[in-house]
Amino acid sequence: MKSDATMKPHDRMAAYLADDMDAVSALIRERMASKHAPRIPEVTAHLVEAGGKRLRPMLTLAAARMCGYDGPYHVHLAATVEFIHTATLLHDDVVDESAQRRGRPTANLLWDNQSSVLVGDYLFARSFQLMTEPGSMPVMRILSNAAATIAEGEVLQLTAAQNLATDEAVYLQVVRGKTAALFSAATEVGGVIADAPEGQVKALYDYGDALGIAFQIVDDLLDYQGDTGATGKNVGDDFRERKLTLPVIKAVAKADAEERAFWVRTIEKGKQEDGDLDHALMLLYKHDTLTATQRDACDWAEKAKAALAPLPDHELKDMLIDLADYVVSRIS
Amino acid sequence: MKSDATMKPHDRMAAYLADDMDAVSALIRERMASKHAPRIPEVTAHLVEAGGKRLRPMLTLAAARMCGYDGPYHVHLAATVEFIHTATLLHDDVVDESAQRRGRPTANLLWDNQSSVLVGDYLFARSFQLMTEPGSMPVMRILSNAAATIAEGEVLQLTAAQNLATDEAVYLQVVRGKTAALFSAATEVGGVIADAPEGQVKALYDYGDALGIAFQIVDDLLDYQGDTGATGKNVGDDFRERKLTLPVIKAVAKADAEERAFWVRTIEKGKQEDGDLDHALMLLYKHDTLTATQRDACDWAEKAKAALAPLPDHELKDMLIDLADYVVSRIS
Repeated sequence: MKSDATMKPHDRMAAYLADDMDAVSALIRERMASKHAPRIPEVTAHLVEAGGKRLRPMLTLAAARMCGYDGPYHVHLAATVEFIHTATLLHDDVVDESAQRRGRPTANLLWDNQSSVLVGDYLFARSFQLMTEPGSMPVMRILSNAAATIAEGEVLQLTAAQNLATDEAVYLQVVRGKTAALFSAATEVGGVIADAPEGQVKALYDYGDALGIAFQIVDDLLDYQGDTGATGKNVGDDFRERKLTLPVIKAVAKADAEERAFWVRTIEKGKQEDGDLDHALMLLYKHDTLTATQRDACDWAEKAKAALAPLPDHELKDMLIDLADYVVSRIS
Repeated sequence: MKSDATMKPHDRMAAYLADDMDAVSALIRERMASKHAPRIPEVTAHLVEAGGKRLRPMLTLAAARMCGYDGPYHVHLAATVEFIHTATLLHDDVVDESAQRRGRPTANLLWDNQSSVLVGDYLFARSFQLMTEPGSMPVMRILSNAAATIAEGEVLQLTAAQNLATDEAVYLQVVRGKTAALFSAATEVGGVIADAPEGQVKALYDYGDALGIAFQIVDDLLDYQGDTGATGKNVGDDFRERKLTLPVIKAVAKADAEERAFWVRTIEKGKQEDGDLDHALMLLYKHDTLTATQRDACDWAEKAKAALAPLPDHELKDMLIDLADYVVSRIS
């Protein structure tokens, strides 16, 4: 359990929870196997071992330990959360027709869409097997609800993303679904499995919810101002995929007639030409929406930290607070 | 509860279970709704209300009632089974790039692949929410295992389908996964929720397993000898999609060098020309593999009927026996 104040909050937490994280990795490797279909672990390993930060399972472990849990099942729940996340990534890349994820070619590119769809289904099913093992009804309810909310958020994004009428409220709904639902379920089940009092479980839920929203807003912001090396994505991917995210929603709200026509053409109609991304960026700077988006992200990070108040003092609580700051530090 | 000996076994059972079937339909309608994403019920309704026979949920209801169940939860389990089935169909149509299902355009054609993938995910998640509601651990284990086995069978099919080395044993494994796993889970959970003795639960599992295998073999046979009106499919779809099914596997086993070269070209390499389907059909007739396949289907139907022996006399038991005969009567 070595951890050191000079490390990044994420790495510090991983070091603190190293034994638990190892147990999660071992369980993931064990459960992603398939006796009959070797394609399954191939595809899964490509994604699972691609150096993702395992942020979500770590949240479950941290929540459970912070609430004094000393049983074995937080590991199952953490692996469940990671499987749901991985399944979602596989299906997202099919839906978005993505070619890169975490700086590597996506599974749908290396194999085919079919493999991504079906291996994603396999991981979903595996996650449901895992979540039943602790035998806790509330845990199953929380995690299966989260899976439904995620899918609902993705479908909503599908219909809302290219519609200029999408406002910040709808955006928040999409983000709560596609991202925050799994963060909040991850922290909540950690408290539930530890049998923490209701107020603490609620606090953990609120922390996960706010952290997930901050995380997604940062992600959407980095799509317009990140550098490819750090994010493994290209600047402007969301623009090219005609996804209305917060920086653009804020710019549309302030658009004059000419600017509005630009957004209608590029986002709603998808008729993009050379130079359009630069023009879009110019409009974001003109209306200062990148700064405003960054402010929103920081506000959500503050809400996440404040939510933790009902929880007793604990090293992990401090790390969760630092983690909220770290999530938004990527953009400040 | 009107039912009449001149009706088809399937319709007779549906009439006998009419109240339960209505409750399942109502629950399905309620749970396929989405507050936030109207696309979800649109896509689902297209498939759910397309006149599918609801065979699988009916099996759950029949098994539970036959074992004396009088609680409310067989309805939840039946709806779970139908949701898993519907999700699978949505994803299958994306994987197969199908244009027709049950004689109507597929969802991926009417909307897009994205909607089919994500709405399928939503239905999977909904099915997991539903299966937790009875609060029975064995039920959850059976149904989540079935979901994993289905996905595994589909992935196995993906890699095995175009490989001439695929023999009858691998075919059976694929069929057990993609089709029989849900049939056997459907009947098994009916017995489990009714708290039937172990021997009866095992009998129900065996019945569902054998019935599912018979059902899929018939389906694969009809692909080569059915008429479009009855199946909503075109003769030779599997050949065009280069899917090695039982009639072809049996023909490959008997092929001389020239015939083998034909199968390598058309199935393994996918280089198909005009007249190839007729030539393939000729080879199936020459080696009499359609008759042999039909015989296999009938054998599995007999196994299904024999499996029911441990169950006490019951009107529904007679109907399940008739149903097994009916499944193979489509080809005899």
